[in-house]
Amino acid sequence: MVILLQCSDRVGLVADISSVMATAGLNIISMKEFVNVDENRFYIRLEIQGDTDTAQLQQQLKARLPDDTEISIRPYEKKKIAILVTKEHHCLGDILLRNYFNTLGAEVQCVIGNYNNLEALTTKFDIPFHCISHEGKEKHAFEQEIQEALAAYEFDYIILAKFMRILSPEFNSKYASRIVNIHHSFLPAFIGAHPYKQAYERGVKLIGATAHFVTNVLDDGPIIAQQTIYVNHTHSVKDMIRLGREIEKSVLANALQLVLQDKVLVYHNKTIVFEN
Amino acid sequence: MVILLQCSDRVGLVADISSVMATAGLNIISMKEFVNVDENRFYIRLEIQGDTDTAQLQQQLKARLPDDTEISIRPYEKKKIAILVTKEHHCLGDILLRNYFNTLGAEVQCVIGNYNNLEALTTKFDIPFHCISHEGKEKHAFEQEIQEALAAYEFDYIILAKFMRILSPEFNSKYASRIVNIHHSFLPAFIGAHPYKQAYERGVKLIGATAHFVTNVLDDGPIIAQQTIYVNHTHSVKDMIRLGREIEKSVLANALQLVLQDKVLVYHNKTIVFEN
Amino acid sequence: MVILLQCSDRVGLVADISSVMATAGLNIISMKEFVNVDENRFYIRLEIQGDTDTAQLQQQLKARLPDDTEISIRPYEKKKIAILVTKEHHCLGDILLRNYFNTLGAEVQCVIGNYNNLEALTTKFDIPFHCISHEGKEKHAFEQEIQEALAAYEFDYIILAKFMRILSPEFNSKYASRIVNIHHSFLPAFIGAHPYKQAYERGVKLIGATAHFVTNVLDDGPIIAQQTIYVNHTHSVKDMIRLGREIEKSVLANALQLVLQDKVLVYHNKTIVFEN
Amino acid sequence: MVILLQCSDRVGLVADISSVMATAGLNIISMKEFVNVDENRFYIRLEIQGDTDTAQLQQQLKARLPDDTEISIRPYEKKKIAILVTKEHHCLGDILLRNYFNTLGAEVQCVIGNYNNLEALTTKFDIPFHCISHEGKEKHAFEQEIQEALAAYEFDYIILAKFMRILSPEFNSKYASRIVNIHHSFLPAFIGAHPYKQAYERGVKLIGATAHFVTNVLDDGPIIAQQTIYVNHTHSVKDMIRLGREIEKSVLANALQLVLQDKVLVYHNKTIVFEN
Repeated sequence: MVILLQCSDRVGLVADISSVMATAGLNIISMKEFVNVDENRFYIRLEIQGDTDTAQLQQQLKARLPDDTEISIRPYEKKKIAILVTKEHHCLGDILLRNYFNTLGAEVQCVIGNYNNLEALTTKFDIPFHCISHEGKEKHAFEQEIQEALAAYEFDYIILAKFMRILSPEFNSKYASRIVNIHHSFLPAFIGAHPYKQAYERGVKLIGATAHFVTNVLDDGPIIAQQTIYVNHTHSVKDMIRLGREIEKSVLANALQLVLQDKVLVYHNKTIVFEN
Repeated sequence: MVILLQCSDRVGLVADISSVMATAGLNIISMKEFVNVDENRFYIRLEIQGDTDTAQLQQQLKARLPDDTEISIRPYEKKKIAILVTKEHHCLGDILLRNYFNTLGAEVQCVIGNYNNLEALTTKFDIPFHCISHEGKEKHAFEQEIQEALAAYEFDYIILAKFMRILSPEFNSKYASRIVNIHHSFLPAFIGAHPYKQAYERGVKLIGATAHFVTNVLDDGPIIAQQTIYVNHTHSVKDMIRLGREIEKSVLANALQLVLQDKVLVYHNKTIVFEN
Repeated sequence: MVILLQCSDRVGLVADISSVMATAGLNIISMKEFVNVDENRFYIRLEIQGDTDTAQLQQQLKARLPDDTEISIRPYEKKKIAILVTKEHHCLGDILLRNYFNTLGAEVQCVIGNYNNLEALTTKFDIPFHCISHEGKEKHAFEQEIQEALAAYEFDYIILAKFMRILSPEFNSKYASRIVNIHHSFLPAFIGAHPYKQAYERGVKLIGATAHFVTNVLDDGPIIAQQTIYVNHTHSVKDMIRLGREIEKSVLANALQLVLQDKVLVYHNKTIVFEN
Repeated sequence: MVILLQCSDRVGLVADISSVMATAGLNIISMKEFVNVDENRFYIRLEIQGDTDTAQLQQQLKARLPDDTEISIRPYEKKKIAILVTKEHHCLGDILLRNYFNTLGAEVQCVIGNYNNLEALTTKFDIPFHCISHEGKEKHAFEQEIQEALAAYEFDYIILAKFMRILSPEFNSKYASRIVNIHHSFLPAFIGAHPYKQAYERGVKLIGATAHFVTNVLDDGPIIAQQTIYVNHTHSVKDMIRLGREIEKSVLANALQLVLQDKVLVYHNKTIVFEN
């Protein structure tokens, strides 16, 4: 199993955690820690071998560690994901291919689109596709339908693979910390709609993409991964959209790998990513 | 000489320009053009061999080309620059070295600092240094002193090599389109003060630097060059400042080379850069 | 149509070419030229509007231009490609998705694999798959079978999308300048088999991928595109293979776009790429 | 102090090391470890607070750890370096500036050049410069003179900041593992002389620079840091040299920071770099 744990820092935390593991007869096969000295905060990721009662282990750790300790114990099981899309195919296609060839580190459970143009692609790979249009509906009703569709599946994360509708705070909090979005700009630059048009108009020499957890503030959640590529005056908005797609799918794939392998901790709207 | 020319696009512009040059007995040794089809705008950079009356050439070109044509004819002479600094040495040091070894493509005329800690470095390279403190002065008085110091020199551009004061619209318009600034963020993200602190707090995974012409809107002028580098949760604000300095000096050096070789045109707050 | 033309440089080439076009009643909508001054070589890419007899146009251009002029006139038609693969799916999957969504700039005619594990993926997208095993065959016989399979299709280029067999000079010359390969290293480093193992053993801090035209010297043909990414001591050979796949597919996609849009000229084992 | 330690891996190494430190009354303020599972090799970097007899500490660690353990205990003292140059100024200038402003993490003791053109720059910064020409001398005599000049100084590392002579095995082994070189290519591509000319002739789309420890095999020592930048067909050899200089100085600066802060371990011609 993987244990992600964070708490305020003090001397002896690693020793205390190691001792709890030893007492429980568990073998630490990998340990990555990080201390943010300025914020006096301790983060650790452990890979553990051995059988144990995880509720009991959690209790033993809590008993030994600071009061503000947050622990997440996760079994070595393939994660399950649900995907929301609008019309663009590049991120979805990339994820479906990885899923098909078992390199995603997750099992795609379903795809929900507010248009039907990605249905044919999705069903080629034997993944259920639900077309739920937003048209002529209030946001609440639209999201209600999505939730009903989702209710038929078990999943760990919802991936917004270029889902172009803003979700309500109610929706977000129902799946808190479990929604990953890809935004087509280098955040915090160009928040909101049409970031490539904004980038073109500002005349930037680099464009970017950002994968982040969704919170109730638009495009403001904890950033998991980012990437930029060079552009110049010869690139039209259309060219930027085309080039941007390449890094959008690359950044999202990278972020998914990190999230699905339990390598990401979140604290105060920021991520700690234990990459290697 | 180098000719930078822009106008609204129509068929036959290159032929018209070539014909003016041929009539004037001038030899085109390099021609780079770009048409922004969406904006119907034509840009060209010419390197020309031969002697001519430039005022007359300008007239001949204007007579043949659209009414909105803007022409800048520049002799093959080394540009002259004045530098403004505050306390940080990395950009200034880099420029002084290039100047000393004749690889800057310009001659540094003077350095003006609002502190004196860069005086020793500057005078090592036999460049005059003027310490003009901003302390206890109104902006107007401070800038007046700078202008008086500058008045003793001829220069084509003012380089803000980490000059940490915001200049007034009056100052900027006096040297319109001739002030180049290096901003320590990937603009338009993190405008204003302490961009690395802002970056740290937002939890971005890349930090950047931007060289741009100065206008009256803070950190909003036409962007000449940008660069980003990866950071992660292990980087403190201090680490970001240290890493950022490396790309600040690299981006500024790159932008200066482009500007000083007359490779940059400006239109509507954006640059057209004929890099190679 | 697109015209790619190269010859030894002399004064007046652009004027001569423009004049031939004007006489033929053809409209130049885009012109990108490059002169290699050191090698006295002129390269140009033209996009032309209007109808004409291309054989006649070719003759008219030849008559006006230097004796060593090489001209390639290509209609605005979607290119056709055949793909050769071995076992790895990432490049093929990426190409099939782009083909399916019409963003490849080509039509995939067929896929030939020396194993059958990519058949299911290929046929999902209604592309014919031919499994031609190399096992128990001499190279000549193996290639003969491939050529027979290929003979059923029309195609402009053969794409080696991680085809792990070395093709014979006979095969290569049959499709001279029409075979594009993706090699999983930053050429000329790590030529031949197992480049990631070589990279791991050398302890490099960057790995790369190279798309190039195939010639009779292994991994030595004209390079179209290259890319590198950072690695470090924590990356095993397996990690490098996994990371490398991401840039392999990205570099190949980039190279294909350039080749399929007739943006690449070749001279003396090097490419001239008119990117924008 | 910093402790760099490596040995074959077994269970309990971190516990053993921690226990030795505790017994010695030493406080571990930072610990970075890496296990190469494929090679069964354990690496650790410790930052330690507290006073101790380092010879005794070394003995205590050896007694507790595997027989093949290699330990290097280094005090928190600024390193000292000697620099060898030929004619190019960019790397030397960069180092001298950092030295002058105390951001190098070392004290430059002297500069030795086989030409005198960098003397004026060096002495501006009050660093002794020795001009030792190689002309008309056998390698042995030349190196003898260098060694005599070096003998007047204490130094931890020799930095070859674009020193364009190949040093003999005798010289190298005298300063084994203490010579850092910057090579102007992405090694192992373009070993030896004129790498940019080689790169131009091969038609690569990226050029690079490599900082490495010097061994007796030319350009083959353990790599510390590498970087690449894009080039294209418009870049002449001269352009590549100019662009390359920017990354040469950046890669060397980066490598020096890592080496001078005791963040680099070497094993079997490869480096383990504990970057953050």
